[in-house]
Amino acid sequence: MKTQTIIKARGYHTDQFGHVNHARFIELLEEGRWCYMEENGLLDLFHSMGLGHVVIRIAVDYKNSVRAGDTMRIETGLIKRGRSSFTMGQNIYLDTTGIQVLEAQIVNVFIDGKSGKAVVPDRGLVSKWHDLAMAGEKEDANG
Amino acid sequence: MKTQTIIKARGYHTDQFGHVNHARFIELLEEGRWCYMEENGLLDLFHSMGLGHVVIRIAVDYKNSVRAGDTMRIETGLIKRGRSSFTMGQNIYLDTTGIQVLEAQIVNVFIDGKSGKAVVPDRGLVSKWHDLAMAGEKEDANG
Amino acid sequence: MKTQTIIKARGYHTDQFGHVNHARFIELLEEGRWCYMEENGLLDLFHSMGLGHVVIRIAVDYKNSVRAGDTMRIETGLIKRGRSSFTMGQNIYLDTTGIQVLEAQIVNVFIDGKSGKAVVPDRGLVSKWHDLAMAGEKEDANG
Amino acid sequence: MKTQTIIKARGYHTDQFGHVNHARFIELLEEGRWCYMEENGLLDLFHSMGLGHVVIRIAVDYKNSVRAGDTMRIETGLIKRGRSSFTMGQNIYLDTTGIQVLEAQIVNVFIDGKSGKAVVPDRGLVSKWHDLAMAGEKEDANG
Repeated sequence: MKTQTIIKARGYHTDQFGHVNHARFIELLEEGRWCYMEENGLLDLFHSMGLGHVVIRIAVDYKNSVRAGDTMRIETGLIKRGRSSFTMGQNIYLDTTGIQVLEAQIVNVFIDGKSGKAVVPDRGLVSKWHDLAMAGEKEDANG
Repeated sequence: MKTQTIIKARGYHTDQFGHVNHARFIELLEEGRWCYMEENGLLDLFHSMGLGHVVIRIAVDYKNSVRAGDTMRIETGLIKRGRSSFTMGQNIYLDTTGIQVLEAQIVNVFIDGKSGKAVVPDRGLVSKWHDLAMAGEKEDANG
Repeated sequence: MKTQTIIKARGYHTDQFGHVNHARFIELLEEGRWCYMEENGLLDLFHSMGLGHVVIRIAVDYKNSVRAGDTMRIETGLIKRGRSSFTMGQNIYLDTTGIQVLEAQIVNVFIDGKSGKAVVPDRGLVSKWHDLAMAGEKEDANG
Repeated sequence: MKTQTIIKARGYHTDQFGHVNHARFIELLEEGRWCYMEENGLLDLFHSMGLGHVVIRIAVDYKNSVRAGDTMRIETGLIKRGRSSFTMGQNIYLDTTGIQVLEAQIVNVFIDGKSGKAVVPDRGLVSKWHDLAMAGEKEDANG
């Protein structure tokens, strides 16, 4: 299930051209992922399993600009699952028109909450994180 | 020629884990590209030709973390040239140890400074932007 | 009337001590003032009168720290009115406990939207901005 | 002795009016104070004495705007000393013209590095932090 996050662009998000700066979007995407984590109870789940996660790769395609006063809708979902990693897919749209602002893929690895080292999480995680189970099924279908 | 930019990580760059936040790096990379633009006289050159440029894609691979007090060295160069676009390659290293922090590719398109629309710049640009000429030769060599 | 803005503190708001950084609060306060402006229809009103406004002074007293995961309530109101300036009063509280995080006063001056120069706005502004009328009455009462 | 920090304003520092945003300046001021701390060996000194410090009050008067491309000179010094607090005075100037951009006072309290509670530091600190000794003398002179 995709999480929707609504954020209004403000003057302090924009640069000298009046457009939301490309670096700012990275922060807005992070906000979207926090919302996804909360909506799916992952903060508590990860904590109970002693898991953390860190971003190891981001790729963002910018398609259209956003101005102060525009309302953005950030859509966040899980799109891929690896043994010790997972990939979030995010899109930002102008809420009124539906025009796509950007498309992003963010790859995370699971880490041990204490040592900070990459780990393969216990299989139990899959049964408790619904999207992860779904992503797994898709992987099977693809190969 | 690669431009070197030295920036010291501060407490306000880091997140709750004490690491420079992944979104902050995008800003540090932008700083590196401004330095490259200045060192190569591109701000004036673009201005005189009525050209602007916008980022259309960023891809960053995070390899190691940075803590407050660490000195970072940002290396910025041109790695690819298209008809109406150019791609900057950037690396960040810990300055003392040489450990690589991240690797990034940033794709820009040329735009008309007034209309804001994508344009193919005049050929004269190549002769005045040395790295662009070099990137072109490399493209030829590759096919 | 005070405007309430709810914002959840995230990891990217905090510094190496795990506290929301003092510079970040300035941005959160700005967000609170944008909300106040919208709730009071001031963006349109200022625009129709050819008015802009700029911050000329901020003073913030920090009282308690905020951690990632805490929900903050930002209260924004008008506290003083001058001939060509107005002062916003803002407080941030931890939403669950009511503990006060900070107290701020932000002084703005009206500027001409075109020239950018300080101006004394038309008296009509007072009748359309309810809090401004109230602030004026209080001034009279005080002397 | 005042510490000088030179920072060039970039597009990502500015807002939709093309001016460095008032919240950004708070970060630039923090950078200036880190430079002061380093230049005076205070990071090591505080660490060796088990001391930390936190900002409890900032007051900033904005006088003139800064645009992308402008070079700023941040001047940072100690202006007042209390039993468990110290006040830094900071000014930002346009480096070429000397025009003053802003004036700021930042009040810090000493805290115990472990407990995080406010403390009165050992008298030995005064002999090792030259400006602090000077600030003390000035206090005597004033009363």
